[in-house]
Amino acid sequence: MDFLSRQQQLRNQLSANRIDALLISHLPNIRYLCGFTGSAGLLLVDETRSFFFTDVRYDTQSREEVKGAKVVIARKAVLSALAESLGRRKKRRKGWAIGIESDHLTVAEKKRLAELLPAGFRLRDSSSLVEKARMVKDDDELALIRSAVQLGATLFDRVLEVLKPGIKESEMAAEMEYAARRAGAEEMSFPTIIASGARPALPHGRASSQVVAPNGFVVCDFGVILAGYCSDQTRTVWVGKPHNEARSAYDEVREAQEAAITAVRPGATVGDVDAAARKVLRKAGLARYFTHSTGHGVGLEIHEAPRVAAAQTEVLRPGMVITIEPGVYFPGKWGIRIEDMVAVTEGACEVLTPTRKDFLAV
Amino acid sequence: MDFLSRQQQLRNQLSANRIDALLISHLPNIRYLCGFTGSAGLLLVDETRSFFFTDVRYDTQSREEVKGAKVVIARKAVLSALAESLGRRKKRRKGWAIGIESDHLTVAEKKRLAELLPAGFRLRDSSSLVEKARMVKDDDELALIRSAVQLGATLFDRVLEVLKPGIKESEMAAEMEYAARRAGAEEMSFPTIIASGARPALPHGRASSQVVAPNGFVVCDFGVILAGYCSDQTRTVWVGKPHNEARSAYDEVREAQEAAITAVRPGATVGDVDAAARKVLRKAGLARYFTHSTGHGVGLEIHEAPRVAAAQTEVLRPGMVITIEPGVYFPGKWGIRIEDMVAVTEGACEVLTPTRKDFLAV
Repeated sequence: MDFLSRQQQLRNQLSANRIDALLISHLPNIRYLCGFTGSAGLLLVDETRSFFFTDVRYDTQSREEVKGAKVVIARKAVLSALAESLGRRKKRRKGWAIGIESDHLTVAEKKRLAELLPAGFRLRDSSSLVEKARMVKDDDELALIRSAVQLGATLFDRVLEVLKPGIKESEMAAEMEYAARRAGAEEMSFPTIIASGARPALPHGRASSQVVAPNGFVVCDFGVILAGYCSDQTRTVWVGKPHNEARSAYDEVREAQEAAITAVRPGATVGDVDAAARKVLRKAGLARYFTHSTGHGVGLEIHEAPRVAAAQTEVLRPGMVITIEPGVYFPGKWGIRIEDMVAVTEGACEVLTPTRKDFLAV
Repeated sequence: MDFLSRQQQLRNQLSANRIDALLISHLPNIRYLCGFTGSAGLLLVDETRSFFFTDVRYDTQSREEVKGAKVVIARKAVLSALAESLGRRKKRRKGWAIGIESDHLTVAEKKRLAELLPAGFRLRDSSSLVEKARMVKDDDELALIRSAVQLGATLFDRVLEVLKPGIKESEMAAEMEYAARRAGAEEMSFPTIIASGARPALPHGRASSQVVAPNGFVVCDFGVILAGYCSDQTRTVWVGKPHNEARSAYDEVREAQEAAITAVRPGATVGDVDAAARKVLRKAGLARYFTHSTGHGVGLEIHEAPRVAAAQTEVLRPGMVITIEPGVYFPGKWGIRIEDMVAVTEGACEVLTPTRKDFLAV
């Protein structure tokens, strides 16, 4: 990972954002910039240097992991160590403006920091500087994402081995998560969704103790974290003997998903991609059952920029990795969602998820 | 769960905190007060009523789960729905003060909310009102915590079945997590720590791909979530033929842990409990290797109030549930930690964790 060039890229944006330094408090941003994987720390990137503050629990780990930043182990609170370090800077008439990640600092933390700051320092709300950089993945990241997606996709093989009427949703999740761990995943990237019976109508139907019925859709939405990077995939399988209504609704969702993928190319907006999926479902009279957005960025976080949603104007660039996951939901009845991860390429896009997505009845 | 009386208890504190309503944004607090288990929502509790705002993904789920609050499904952003609802209140000369959870609202969210608020409304930083109530568990909660702790403790049996030189830490974690899921756990309450070789010296050594060496301590720190409530337990096992130094350090930590448990009673402070553990390790010349605090509250969150740490003054009351987990860490060499969950009772305390903790070599 080229942490130094990531930090340099951020440095180059400080003055345009009218700050002398950015205080990074969001852990995935910290990991992205300097490699620290622990759960407590602050990174300060100024025009020439970087400082990483953490507590004594992470003494050994931070010295091993952190690249491109001087590690400071706080004797007491991490915020105090930061304030002390700032206090040692030379005074200057125009003072110092420290940007904070206003999306990732609580009101209380900002207040505490403001109280601790020495004279001559002021805080300025900054946001999304690192998230914007993280939208475009470099080659190291793409390789890690590919590995996570490949591993994640093997869990669907496990689904097909264990899915049958009578199995509990939570048992299916157990089998998938066990397979993921055995294959080297650090953890799941979100609570596994296995939704059977009428539960596929819930877009967020986490695996419950419900048993799979003899007939109906089962939505399986799952992902792993491998070397810090997330995978995210959904497949919907019919259990029992399918009828035409189910099959035809499935085919519409699949067509919508393919249309959205076809719309992914450099220069298109995420709104265009969302519209492509919605257009297919509108023609099929299903648009009002597609109640969420088409997708989202994936990387160190399971949900990150850009949002692939109606009227969003972010322009796709090579290296962006997004999900394409239209779905339809009929409350009390059923639901269908199909989700792949795709990477924007120079030409158009590459579907990363290798799993088949034709209608499947077991 | 008696959600109505929890909300009433909060209502009774509004005026003393100079607010007309509290806006609850921290999801575990929302779950505690009204039962919602999803990932997006806001609860507003005023002097007489409660309102729960969420988005369309949680339409069905929130109507099923939420008790004691009117459910409002936002057409657009949840914050906008809240602001609209407030805007329909009748004007009054003194205006309305809305408390926010300043520990759980980001700087950006507060700013957005302030921009959306109608005239006559002001925000006041409140914090920890719900967390303070949550420190003392009611009988329903104690029953759920007991179940989570019992389930969690069975994972140590799995440790003893699989632990041997050559197994990967991550394989051990896989076996434990699989057993947890099969037994009905919703998920692990934190990333499982299995630390072997020199890694027990890292207090937060998540299971890695390292294989267990023929000789040395293995720290196993793990917990499950069952019906929303967390368990948390640590055991340290010696692999191979133990030597006296290892055994004697283990016994000191165990003595420190027992001393801290003995100090847990109504009226004692959490600082007293921490001091009791530290005193034993000081006598043994090990105090400087005990680099973290003695424990923390556990409930809907794996880490919640109170902190059981040096000089903390929170007074223990019946119904509080805390961990007691002293440890010693020798960088590059080894580490030992022993952790139980205990509930403060009318008389003294009850150790909830059933697992043996004498020195164990496998």
